[in-house]
Amino acid sequence: MAPHRTVISIDPLKPAKGQAGTMNRWSHLIPAFAKVAQGEVFKVGCHEWTGGQIKNSDDADDIRDVDLTQIHYLSGPVAVEGAEAGDALVVDILDIQPYDEMPWGYTGIFEEKDGGLFATEFKTKASKAIWDFEGRFATSRHIPGVRFAGLTHPGILGTAPSAELLAEWNRREQALIDAHPGCSPAVALGPEPKGAYVGQDLPADVMERIAREGARTIPGREHGGNCDIKNLSIGSRAWLPVFVEGANLAVGDLHFSQGDVQQSFCGAIEQAGIITLKCTVVKGGVDKFALKQPIFLPSPIDPLYTQQLTFEGISVDLHGDGSQKSMCATTAYKQASLNAIAYLKKLGYTLEQAYLLLSAAPVESHVAALVDVPNAMVTMSLPPAIFDRDIMPRPEGLEKRDYGQCALRSDGQRSFDLIEDNERKAREAEAGKKQ
Amino acid sequence: MAPHRTVISIDPLKPAKGQAGTMNRWSHLIPAFAKVAQGEVFKVGCHEWTGGQIKNSDDADDIRDVDLTQIHYLSGPVAVEGAEAGDALVVDILDIQPYDEMPWGYTGIFEEKDGGLFATEFKTKASKAIWDFEGRFATSRHIPGVRFAGLTHPGILGTAPSAELLAEWNRREQALIDAHPGCSPAVALGPEPKGAYVGQDLPADVMERIAREGARTIPGREHGGNCDIKNLSIGSRAWLPVFVEGANLAVGDLHFSQGDVQQSFCGAIEQAGIITLKCTVVKGGVDKFALKQPIFLPSPIDPLYTQQLTFEGISVDLHGDGSQKSMCATTAYKQASLNAIAYLKKLGYTLEQAYLLLSAAPVESHVAALVDVPNAMVTMSLPPAIFDRDIMPRPEGLEKRDYGQCALRSDGQRSFDLIEDNERKAREAEAGKKQ
Amino acid sequence: MAPHRTVISIDPLKPAKGQAGTMNRWSHLIPAFAKVAQGEVFKVGCHEWTGGQIKNSDDADDIRDVDLTQIHYLSGPVAVEGAEAGDALVVDILDIQPYDEMPWGYTGIFEEKDGGLFATEFKTKASKAIWDFEGRFATSRHIPGVRFAGLTHPGILGTAPSAELLAEWNRREQALIDAHPGCSPAVALGPEPKGAYVGQDLPADVMERIAREGARTIPGREHGGNCDIKNLSIGSRAWLPVFVEGANLAVGDLHFSQGDVQQSFCGAIEQAGIITLKCTVVKGGVDKFALKQPIFLPSPIDPLYTQQLTFEGISVDLHGDGSQKSMCATTAYKQASLNAIAYLKKLGYTLEQAYLLLSAAPVESHVAALVDVPNAMVTMSLPPAIFDRDIMPRPEGLEKRDYGQCALRSDGQRSFDLIEDNERKAREAEAGKKQ
Amino acid sequence: MAPHRTVISIDPLKPAKGQAGTMNRWSHLIPAFAKVAQGEVFKVGCHEWTGGQIKNSDDADDIRDVDLTQIHYLSGPVAVEGAEAGDALVVDILDIQPYDEMPWGYTGIFEEKDGGLFATEFKTKASKAIWDFEGRFATSRHIPGVRFAGLTHPGILGTAPSAELLAEWNRREQALIDAHPGCSPAVALGPEPKGAYVGQDLPADVMERIAREGARTIPGREHGGNCDIKNLSIGSRAWLPVFVEGANLAVGDLHFSQGDVQQSFCGAIEQAGIITLKCTVVKGGVDKFALKQPIFLPSPIDPLYTQQLTFEGISVDLHGDGSQKSMCATTAYKQASLNAIAYLKKLGYTLEQAYLLLSAAPVESHVAALVDVPNAMVTMSLPPAIFDRDIMPRPEGLEKRDYGQCALRSDGQRSFDLIEDNERKAREAEAGKKQ
Repeated sequence: MAPHRTVISIDPLKPAKGQAGTMNRWSHLIPAFAKVAQGEVFKVGCHEWTGGQIKNSDDADDIRDVDLTQIHYLSGPVAVEGAEAGDALVVDILDIQPYDEMPWGYTGIFEEKDGGLFATEFKTKASKAIWDFEGRFATSRHIPGVRFAGLTHPGILGTAPSAELLAEWNRREQALIDAHPGCSPAVALGPEPKGAYVGQDLPADVMERIAREGARTIPGREHGGNCDIKNLSIGSRAWLPVFVEGANLAVGDLHFSQGDVQQSFCGAIEQAGIITLKCTVVKGGVDKFALKQPIFLPSPIDPLYTQQLTFEGISVDLHGDGSQKSMCATTAYKQASLNAIAYLKKLGYTLEQAYLLLSAAPVESHVAALVDVPNAMVTMSLPPAIFDRDIMPRPEGLEKRDYGQCALRSDGQRSFDLIEDNERKAREAEAGKKQ
Repeated sequence: MAPHRTVISIDPLKPAKGQAGTMNRWSHLIPAFAKVAQGEVFKVGCHEWTGGQIKNSDDADDIRDVDLTQIHYLSGPVAVEGAEAGDALVVDILDIQPYDEMPWGYTGIFEEKDGGLFATEFKTKASKAIWDFEGRFATSRHIPGVRFAGLTHPGILGTAPSAELLAEWNRREQALIDAHPGCSPAVALGPEPKGAYVGQDLPADVMERIAREGARTIPGREHGGNCDIKNLSIGSRAWLPVFVEGANLAVGDLHFSQGDVQQSFCGAIEQAGIITLKCTVVKGGVDKFALKQPIFLPSPIDPLYTQQLTFEGISVDLHGDGSQKSMCATTAYKQASLNAIAYLKKLGYTLEQAYLLLSAAPVESHVAALVDVPNAMVTMSLPPAIFDRDIMPRPEGLEKRDYGQCALRSDGQRSFDLIEDNERKAREAEAGKKQ
Repeated sequence: MAPHRTVISIDPLKPAKGQAGTMNRWSHLIPAFAKVAQGEVFKVGCHEWTGGQIKNSDDADDIRDVDLTQIHYLSGPVAVEGAEAGDALVVDILDIQPYDEMPWGYTGIFEEKDGGLFATEFKTKASKAIWDFEGRFATSRHIPGVRFAGLTHPGILGTAPSAELLAEWNRREQALIDAHPGCSPAVALGPEPKGAYVGQDLPADVMERIAREGARTIPGREHGGNCDIKNLSIGSRAWLPVFVEGANLAVGDLHFSQGDVQQSFCGAIEQAGIITLKCTVVKGGVDKFALKQPIFLPSPIDPLYTQQLTFEGISVDLHGDGSQKSMCATTAYKQASLNAIAYLKKLGYTLEQAYLLLSAAPVESHVAALVDVPNAMVTMSLPPAIFDRDIMPRPEGLEKRDYGQCALRSDGQRSFDLIEDNERKAREAEAGKKQ
Repeated sequence: MAPHRTVISIDPLKPAKGQAGTMNRWSHLIPAFAKVAQGEVFKVGCHEWTGGQIKNSDDADDIRDVDLTQIHYLSGPVAVEGAEAGDALVVDILDIQPYDEMPWGYTGIFEEKDGGLFATEFKTKASKAIWDFEGRFATSRHIPGVRFAGLTHPGILGTAPSAELLAEWNRREQALIDAHPGCSPAVALGPEPKGAYVGQDLPADVMERIAREGARTIPGREHGGNCDIKNLSIGSRAWLPVFVEGANLAVGDLHFSQGDVQQSFCGAIEQAGIITLKCTVVKGGVDKFALKQPIFLPSPIDPLYTQQLTFEGISVDLHGDGSQKSMCATTAYKQASLNAIAYLKKLGYTLEQAYLLLSAAPVESHVAALVDVPNAMVTMSLPPAIFDRDIMPRPEGLEKRDYGQCALRSDGQRSFDLIEDNERKAREAEAGKKQ
């Protein structure tokens, strides 16, 4: 039996731009770079999402200086024999392995202008944690005391859009952009010729049209795309709608691990690696399964951390100012997250370490209730088993340890500690009451 | 060894109003109705949330005619020996059993005016499903072909607010109401003397003040309250902040089962029953654990349905009109839900049956991604093991069966089938393209 | 909807003997005491296995003095409409609840003569632990520091044998007895008129024949019977072969919890209670499913303690004497158990407490390997989450606490501490080597 | 960050004999081949257990002709910095990957003379199944219709014995051999110079003594060794007793998957591959944790197949002859296995396919009860989710499909079908009764 075929090979230590079989736009005009048979097990090399801008170092200047116009370099397209529009492409995600020469990944907190869930609340300054891969587990010198198995997954997995579907994406997203002129950060990102890349020899007019009309890779869409679903992981099976002959699958943005939401934006453990896949086709599957977007079966080998310390969040008072939102799940999510960060600070982690950890670890977040006005209720669950000591809420309280700090900017600037500020406000309010 | 003490007894077959030990407002002014020792196992009888308005019948006129001003009748307050403000009250939810004479519950779809996640999209008409309890499992003559173990939990569990906290709730919620004058449905519900009830002999002026200032029971708040968290279930342990001496715990709104979000509003399997509890106190626990809201450990006996058919949803095109929302998790949740309903319709379930089933069954919903503009990504997972046949997406497609229908209004009016309408639009668009 | 029907009612506080609907032999001659329809949810009251001989007390004299000739008092037979020989009886175990007036159970170590896995090695003296039921959880004043959810199950669930099957049981078991004359403890227990009981008005000759020929209830057999399978628990579904018209199901020997093997013989948490069941019939199921013995699907609500500290055992050196057994799984099991007991002793538990705990807690035991001569390999796994503190093997070692002692005989006699003796031998051997 | 260091490299396509860093005896005299620091992540290449005798082919002549005197070729010893006798060596099993050029493994049924659990009952003839590795999953052209995630583990992981411990092993095993003169198959395997191999340049006298006194690798012992524990898998952490300076760890006999017991002897999916490990040391750990044998924590990424169709087995009537064993767990295990095989035959699998599948798939086997004379009770559980169709015991019965056959001897000889024979006996007995 021959080794499984590697249909796209990349060098993770060189810039993604210029390498064959990569692409950073979605378009029906990009021809298949490789072809596979149904049922064939094949491998695809993938760059990490920034294409090598982030280093295994102990400062976060590279995060501060990141150029986000280049992302995401995907690998593909891969055509699957026999797939036609209206079929369902069954994709088995069989394995993801890092490159031997790059057994590490990173999680970053971006500068405020570059986004992230708490960008404005924390007035974020660039920070990062380097994670070392120890087989299926990750540890970090920047966040001591934790170790967890990865829910390793491709952040992006998608079939090629048809001409009609691409036109529809561009139409509806442009309408949103038009409705919010000058909005920053942008509400959506329209086609952008600058930086567009396809690692194939294409006629100039085709390449020009791809660059001019191709959809950006940031959001998830009907074809899958940048779903960032932590459970679409090694061992899962997805059914994707097919829009063009051959399906023309592309894949990338590998994540060694990620919590629900990936809150710090660059919040997964970003990695380069080799993904092993197998594809088959269900004829007419779009109609058979009413596929408007992909469906999938999560993996039987997802890490199982059943004991989950769970934090509740409701849509109030994010800033210690008594504000009340109306049924806002995002505020409730943030409140749950702040509560978890406050708990982690009691254990000795810094704000930055806690924010990075909740982004990257196998954290579960459920929308618990969306019908009880005015408060949405969201939960966030953290598995105590990933810590190297007992962190349970025992009667004697929590022991605070010194965990150092993650990688910061070399000028030492840090994010604003909203939790400390909220605590200060609470103390002052209490003191006011007592007078 | 004596039987465990029942500290509040109710008659679930008689109206809740007039029964001792019940209450439907939150206030520091409501004295403890019962007292328990730390570590004592005790039982509390609880009404179902409407206080007996819904019948075990085959039409939904009772749902149509429900009087929502009466809800929720809780049982309490129960004072816990030694608890003081600033402590954490550790509550073990030890068991919930239905009354022998009422081994059933119900899930309802309300009329559009009364709310629910799809109230406007589906222009909902009252519908319901009666669920028969078979020990730890539920089945329904109105939704044949499914059977599942309950994630049985109290929708409401909360400590009494202090005077200051109650004032803060009223202030911030009134500010929201004031900011949305005339809004329907209401953005929040302020104190309302009408219908206020406390099942104790109280001085008239105290009762009058509770009625005038007491907080309504609809939302979850810092003390817990109406969290509607499906995993705060039998076997879980919660740490609640204490605001008044004795903690003064109240409990009710029992749910035999519920999916994440409880989407149809009356979407859990609503039941009356007896809850068994145990409380202890961690001195200074609010500070020790940084408790702004409750935290909890989910139960080791929550039903484990590990194989989960998962539907993705993004924030676009709910109405088949190509609309694009900006990073809206609610739209993404709804889209995932519509995708699941469309799948269930392929199996033969009606729109109403599918909507009720996704509300009541142990459905998991994760916020997958909130950082990839413009599309939020939410997943909804349905366990195939709850069906009495194979519902997996096999190559041969799904077999459609006749499952009848749930209970409708006696005049036969039904909700609007948005999915059918979307499919019609898609067919017309396709036909238009081909001309 | 009416309450579920209780088809057999018992009084757990009175002697089982004399109560209607109970029985302690298996025979086709015992007529159905009750009849149920297919699909009907019904309840059956059950005595604890000794019929009330053991008290909720702090000495173990009742265990020392137990009369084992009376066991097991089962409840039944219950005929199921439409069941015939050759069918499969599908039994749903829907719930088990203790009696309100008896919210406790017990685990016992018998005197050496009465058996148990370590009876001879430990030269056991009667000991016991009383367990208090706190809803779905158990704690014990005799084994402090642990609390776990029950894998609650009927130790015994069986259909009635046909005349032919009963004859076959008696034949083959008598052959075994005959082959080991005078063996103590007995290798098998043949029919025994003394103590035989059926709680029905039967003609004297029929009763006499049942007493003379009826099979004893100790072992599991083709019909199910005393399987003592911890995972045939609340929420499981079993398919039992039917041998007589109506199937004539009997049930009893309820266990609140049990580890694999139930090693101390009276090693489950023995309880009285009410079991809720539902039965349907698969025509010809014996042939359809090749049923020689029952098959079953374990429950989705079995307690999930995924982190499992696992002890290995091989078939050597049980007595610190360097003995070597040939591929003996029982010795390997015992060795794994001794290793677990030694670990528990490091935490501060006594030999008796550890032996009782491993018998009653949700301990998993796997036959790991039976093919590597000369050593069988068996594992025993203990969930750290059932302890109220961290018991993991951390670098700093284990903290020894004072956990008192379980209930002993009033004369204070204790079992022989084999582990201490083995340690002594090891120290002496080590000292010998150094000289 | 540099790639993880590979401390032992092997060529899986060449004979193990002659390659450096391999060994097939246990002895304190074998010097460390490699040294690692505490906490260092390192890789070790491992041969499959027969050292390359079995081919990826469609007949089983290679199984028939296997030379068992060569096994097992292990990789090691690896010394760990700072480890001393009396310490516990903490071993993290971080990953196992097959060689790219060998993405397959095999499961074999040996000829009767070479052993296996049913060797005599089935009068086994050599058979095999080749398994293709698809990332973390395996499928087989010889057993169609199943696919499962591997519980991938080293069958052998052990520290070096001290001189005293080795002497003790030899003493006690020789005593067993002496007690069973001429026994076939052998009850134990004493030291055997023939075939002994250590892949290092050693002085002739040392090598001669290792060959003469070194312990064989077949059984598991106090140091770990050939435990064949399926849950000592990727992601688990083990604490092994240390007997010599450096601990001198050796590892091998990799299994892609295995059921509890590995019943057909060569019953795991045998593979070559690269294992990634990390070791640290707990000083004095043998005493701290009362380590007589290893203890371990199973992995959070073990495949989770929670729905388990469970077969019961009791210690009777293996041959359809009504025989009765006394409390024999092995017979009960075999009976459960026969019941599962009979069920698989109803689905269309052959006896050989079923036997191989139950050996290699993630089958769980629990010792349920060992105290109810005369019948031991053992369960065997098979996860329906590994099949590509519904195999549940539905009312309509099981659909029989044509699954072909596994690889047999080229002369077509097959094992004896005990199940068919038992069914024939049952039919004849039934016919006899009716006359």
